[in-house]
Amino acid sequence: MNVVGLLAFAVAGSLKASDAGLDLFGVAVLGVLTALGGGTVRDVLVNRPPASLTTTGDMTVALVGVALAVVLARRAPEHVRILDSRAFLVSDAVGLAAFAATGALVGTDAGLAPYGVVVLAAVTAVGGGSFADVFLGRVPVVLREDFYATPALLGGGVFLFARVVGAPTGVSAGACAGVVFALRMLALRREWRLPQV
Amino acid sequence: MNVVGLLAFAVAGSLKASDAGLDLFGVAVLGVLTALGGGTVRDVLVNRPPASLTTTGDMTVALVGVALAVVLARRAPEHVRILDSRAFLVSDAVGLAAFAATGALVGTDAGLAPYGVVVLAAVTAVGGGSFADVFLGRVPVVLREDFYATPALLGGGVFLFARVVGAPTGVSAGACAGVVFALRMLALRREWRLPQV
Amino acid sequence: MNVVGLLAFAVAGSLKASDAGLDLFGVAVLGVLTALGGGTVRDVLVNRPPASLTTTGDMTVALVGVALAVVLARRAPEHVRILDSRAFLVSDAVGLAAFAATGALVGTDAGLAPYGVVVLAAVTAVGGGSFADVFLGRVPVVLREDFYATPALLGGGVFLFARVVGAPTGVSAGACAGVVFALRMLALRREWRLPQV
Repeated sequence: MNVVGLLAFAVAGSLKASDAGLDLFGVAVLGVLTALGGGTVRDVLVNRPPASLTTTGDMTVALVGVALAVVLARRAPEHVRILDSRAFLVSDAVGLAAFAATGALVGTDAGLAPYGVVVLAAVTAVGGGSFADVFLGRVPVVLREDFYATPALLGGGVFLFARVVGAPTGVSAGACAGVVFALRMLALRREWRLPQV
Repeated sequence: MNVVGLLAFAVAGSLKASDAGLDLFGVAVLGVLTALGGGTVRDVLVNRPPASLTTTGDMTVALVGVALAVVLARRAPEHVRILDSRAFLVSDAVGLAAFAATGALVGTDAGLAPYGVVVLAAVTAVGGGSFADVFLGRVPVVLREDFYATPALLGGGVFLFARVVGAPTGVSAGACAGVVFALRMLALRREWRLPQV
Repeated sequence: MNVVGLLAFAVAGSLKASDAGLDLFGVAVLGVLTALGGGTVRDVLVNRPPASLTTTGDMTVALVGVALAVVLARRAPEHVRILDSRAFLVSDAVGLAAFAATGALVGTDAGLAPYGVVVLAAVTAVGGGSFADVFLGRVPVVLREDFYATPALLGGGVFLFARVVGAPTGVSAGACAGVVFALRMLALRREWRLPQV
């Protein structure tokens, strides 16, 4: 699940950068940032060495995603079609779910307060894409309209609830990921939005 | 003082986000970020677990501020009036003073160099609002025109001076907060500005 | 070399801020951020106290750079001429080389994976300027068109290669810095660019 998510996020970030006219380095940076940025900030927030820099697996997958995006971008100039395809949206929701569960796990391991666990689930899941948006000079789309971060927050809550009622860590993480994925897919189908204030 | 500051900062961030057309999640994120962002970056810079994630008090106060802002935003569509009211400006200056003093204290505890203590006072005080501005795609207002960060920098200097002449920590922090608050209120009354370069 | 780089980066950041109409505080922040931001994020990523806050030397040099920029800005309103001068471009390339080598060294010391060492070389070298661009609401120029980050990435690779073939640390760092400087000067002369995607 993590690998699917890293690929989907890297493709999304790279295509966004390509649409914005960045050069090859910029496309690679935004792809990697979208895939690994949330997890890196998560690790920094709990004062541990970022897995993205101390291991090679995640970065390799992210770079494969960048390469895939470059190939796709040359073949299909209309990137919107790729990003709106069912295959992409499902992969992206899988990533959202996997990242939220990982964030909740890391937060619990680090001894954070309940709020902190929920924040870490959301930061891990939507942080990378948000930073990529900021680098492109845009207000992150998750803050404006997409029902995308809310599943991650609710998933963090589900994780906490499962832990409180005594579920083992693995089950709690699975319940979190399941809820995030289901809510995200429902939100896409029903076009859910949060109200403006 | 800290609670007043957290509330004022959360209200300011939330109203700014509401004016920018963000949805409920975005309004909550910007409110929380404005209130807790400076302290979180301060803690990350000195390699300690962020108080915003390991405790529940600060986040609760920030969320109360967000809720307050949502109520205010629905009642009074002209947010400028709220943010220009005397009650808000005084609360905001109290927060600026409290946050600068906390930043200077944490910097001293962490064994930073004098520059580092002053930087940490300023980052704690104006970091959250600046990051919120960046997320909204704006140049942080403290970098452009407001006489807002300068009191925090000078307050950090006062803290250092008090420590050098042998004042106890509590007195140094109080002197820092007092100077920041007085300078900020004076700056508002006299419309002080720094020159452009 | 480090001092030359800090000065060049601080001047570049300050002049950019002055052109954007920031006030004196904003000019100082962007100058300091450009000079010290990359190294600070590097240190945070490997969980060590940022040298920019625990020592006084680097910050002093950065502030001298800011003061220099203020004097230059008042004398020569056309900052482009300063930033396009040969003296500035060489100093800036020296900084790029020194910062990339320092980043690679810190990454190796911290036990990062090979990718991590290369990323840290690039973050140290181009991070400060990129954050300054983001604060000004711009897409970082290194992501768009300049052949500026690529030398730092390649220099990180040279450092790794030198270590693998058994070169002592000092020699590896020197080789890294030499390659970065040479590639950057060549890129300027030949107007190299990366392709868009």
